Amino acid sequence: MAQTTALPRNEMGIGSALGVLKQRFGERFQTGEAIRQQHGHTTTWIDNQPPDGVVFAQSTAEVSEIMKICAAHKVPVIPFGTGTSLEGHVNAPAGGISIDMMQMDQVLEVNAGDLDCRVQPGVTREALNTYLRDQGLFFPIDPGANASLGGMTATRASGTNAVRYGTMKDNVLSVEAVMADGTVIRTASRARKSSAGYDLTRLMVGSEGTLGLITEITLRLQGIPEAISAASCSFPTVEDACETVMAVIQYGVPVARIELLDALVVKALNSYSKLDLPETPLLLLEFHGSQAGVAEQAETFGALADENGGTGYKATTTLEERNKLWQARHDAYWAMLALRPGCKAVTTDVCVPISRLADAVGGANARAADLGLTAPIVGHAGDGNFHASILIDMDDAEEVARAAEFVSHLNELAISMDGTCTGEHGIGQGKRRYLVKELGQGTVDVMGTIKRALDPDNLLNPGKILPA
Amino acid sequence: MAQTTALPRNEMGIGSALGVLKQRFGERFQTGEAIRQQHGHTTTWIDNQPPDGVVFAQSTAEVSEIMKICAAHKVPVIPFGTGTSLEGHVNAPAGGISIDMMQMDQVLEVNAGDLDCRVQPGVTREALNTYLRDQGLFFPIDPGANASLGGMTATRASGTNAVRYGTMKDNVLSVEAVMADGTVIRTASRARKSSAGYDLTRLMVGSEGTLGLITEITLRLQGIPEAISAASCSFPTVEDACETVMAVIQYGVPVARIELLDALVVKALNSYSKLDLPETPLLLLEFHGSQAGVAEQAETFGALADENGGTGYKATTTLEERNKLWQARHDAYWAMLALRPGCKAVTTDVCVPISRLADAVGGANARAADLGLTAPIVGHAGDGNFHASILIDMDDAEEVARAAEFVSHLNELAISMDGTCTGEHGIGQGKRRYLVKELGQGTVDVMGTIKRALDPDNLLNPGKILPA
Repeated sequence: MAQTTALPRNEMGIGSALGVLKQRFGERFQTGEAIRQQHGHTTTWIDNQPPDGVVFAQSTAEVSEIMKICAAHKVPVIPFGTGTSLEGHVNAPAGGISIDMMQMDQVLEVNAGDLDCRVQPGVTREALNTYLRDQGLFFPIDPGANASLGGMTATRASGTNAVRYGTMKDNVLSVEAVMADGTVIRTASRARKSSAGYDLTRLMVGSEGTLGLITEITLRLQGIPEAISAASCSFPTVEDACETVMAVIQYGVPVARIELLDALVVKALNSYSKLDLPETPLLLLEFHGSQAGVAEQAETFGALADENGGTGYKATTTLEERNKLWQARHDAYWAMLALRPGCKAVTTDVCVPISRLADAVGGANARAADLGLTAPIVGHAGDGNFHASILIDMDDAEEVARAAEFVSHLNELAISMDGTCTGEHGIGQGKRRYLVKELGQGTVDVMGTIKRALDPDNLLNPGKILPA
Repeated sequence: MAQTTALPRNEMGIGSALGVLKQRFGERFQTGEAIRQQHGHTTTWIDNQPPDGVVFAQSTAEVSEIMKICAAHKVPVIPFGTGTSLEGHVNAPAGGISIDMMQMDQVLEVNAGDLDCRVQPGVTREALNTYLRDQGLFFPIDPGANASLGGMTATRASGTNAVRYGTMKDNVLSVEAVMADGTVIRTASRARKSSAGYDLTRLMVGSEGTLGLITEITLRLQGIPEAISAASCSFPTVEDACETVMAVIQYGVPVARIELLDALVVKALNSYSKLDLPETPLLLLEFHGSQAGVAEQAETFGALADENGGTGYKATTTLEERNKLWQARHDAYWAMLALRPGCKAVTTDVCVPISRLADAVGGANARAADLGLTAPIVGHAGDGNFHASILIDMDDAEEVARAAEFVSHLNELAISMDGTCTGEHGIGQGKRRYLVKELGQGTVDVMGTIKRALDPDNLLNPGKILPA
């Protein structure tokens, strides 16, 4: 299932750059096949397109130097973090050099009084939270994988608690980036807000390495809440669950997480995690606040759920029970895989206005059934964002084709509802064909104009985001 | 005190465009001196530079048509809302056509279930809130003036309650814009989050009409809180007040507003509004939430204020007392003017990391004293953003020069603290000289590259944001 096309390679330039980089970086420059393949796309059904070499950078100055070498030889450059992206973001369709940022893993500065910090791109979110814990602070964005903060910034990642804390767009104050000519810029000051010129911070967030290489990120932090509680509630139908979610949002309950699991996921969890949940849609919640505030949120949710046929609602504040509840959410991926042993799970990612969420989930379920596919759904319901995980026998070409048809249908369904073909995974290679459908040719042309202006030789992660 | 320079005029093109527009728009195209001057800058000491004509547009198609006419003749175009901007944003230094958007004043769509709406740019924030009230919804951003939502979007406005609800950057889901060639684009879907390509929404927000003409805005809305309470508290020093603000933010108290008034403002209010407040720094607050939540926030704030020497703390939930309290904040401008009758108030706008706020306010006070200026300060303390209003006798050239020196000092002080020369007013003409100091030449060059790529003939609001 190749969703990728090779692009023309500048063989002569690549050859020259390989020589220069080897001489300059020695053992920190690698061209072995295994390392190169690890630095291509590995997480989904998109083909692996390895770079020609991998350099392990240790400083902004080095990234700038590598960029200048590659610019001189007109060789593509692809930034690499943990490699957990899902749409082929780290592939090298025109070859070139992967810059592995994971040795740039320092927390450079924490300003507790301002609730911000400055990190290198190779710091992972878990490493940052471990670092911050003693100071009573945390960084809320959790995309699931223990991704690097550089990669999360580049893909505009979010995850379960974006409903309360926003996405990377909302939590990055400023970035330092190396531009296509090797120039190092910083996009903004450390002020919490500014009207000083174009919002280059937000332009870099979500640009997937195609406009610049992110070498530092200044992040907003949060105080660890005094109290956290978790809850779960079953609903007769997806519609009932979604009505409850809308009421919660409209009522202004500041839920930290509100996750939807469809009946098929619940069934999978019952089997995998030995649970005894009603095999109907389930909402999993987390509340952050003061003791009294958390209790009030839980009570308000209970009342709203009750109006929509919610059953088996229970809230818990003990860490142990809370972990048990969220373990189910974390187990969901493995539980789903166990539905069809030996299959691969290919995960979709659409986001619609919340009022259309029930229709979108229902439409996805119906289409999967029509196509004879098993595609359980989990969703960040408070944002209208959900993922269907299609369980595919990758050796069955006909089934793979049906899965591709499902993905296509789902993206177009979301777009038809004034939603997006990607709530948080990004465009990469896999979703390029939907960008014009979603935003129109004129809008995509503006993106192309910006790309060509900032990267005239198309060296920064070519073949991503913009349609060919 | 001219902060403005005239730019070269394309006399022939302007003459041609005037003829075409007159023929096309008849009475909706005006060239009288009074109307032209009203559509130049009028609110501060920056010189008025009127456009050559004003067209009152009524639709996106008309804005596109006007843009195409002006592009054909290479004539500048300046979008105009309520004219309440403060840094010369609506001036026409190269002449050209002002497009008055105030007849595009329709709320096009309200999606209550999704907490969003779509409006034309001439809808003011008060008009929108009047429209929404019956549905239990409101739009939170309040920059003080009853500005148009198009103008607020273009300047990345915020104001008193950004500390809780964010700025325009956080509350615009999508814009429709007419680009330099007349093409109409829409930047994003109505999904609450998306990773679909470059964040053109945020690029347009705060671009001050220099990248495109905003013709529709899709906004996030909030449910009107169940309970609102207000409070005030006096502090011995600005440091004590700022320490309290930091504690409030770090503690995660979701204050809706937390405003700092320095001792001079309080003194002015006592005199103007017949109050009897201690003439020391004052914090004014507003809490939004459930009845219990608001009470808890007020109590938590009281405890934190107490630790920092706060006195006279009182919270109130009755509408009458709340209005009385905020009336003081709204009176502040007039009360300050009354400190020196006959003078003009020129308002500055800097924003620093909160941990530097006390130093910045102290530094501003000290410099004003050194220069013999009266410059009372109010601030959106929760964001580290504050305004000194310099009371100037505009007939005294020497005093005007000292005021200019103060403004310059204050901007550079904020920049030296890793803050910004504008938290919310924008760059316009008045702050262009600080952009490179704040962000560096490389960063400003990137902005210039984007500007030239999207507007190669420099027709969209020329002479703003980017240094000459």
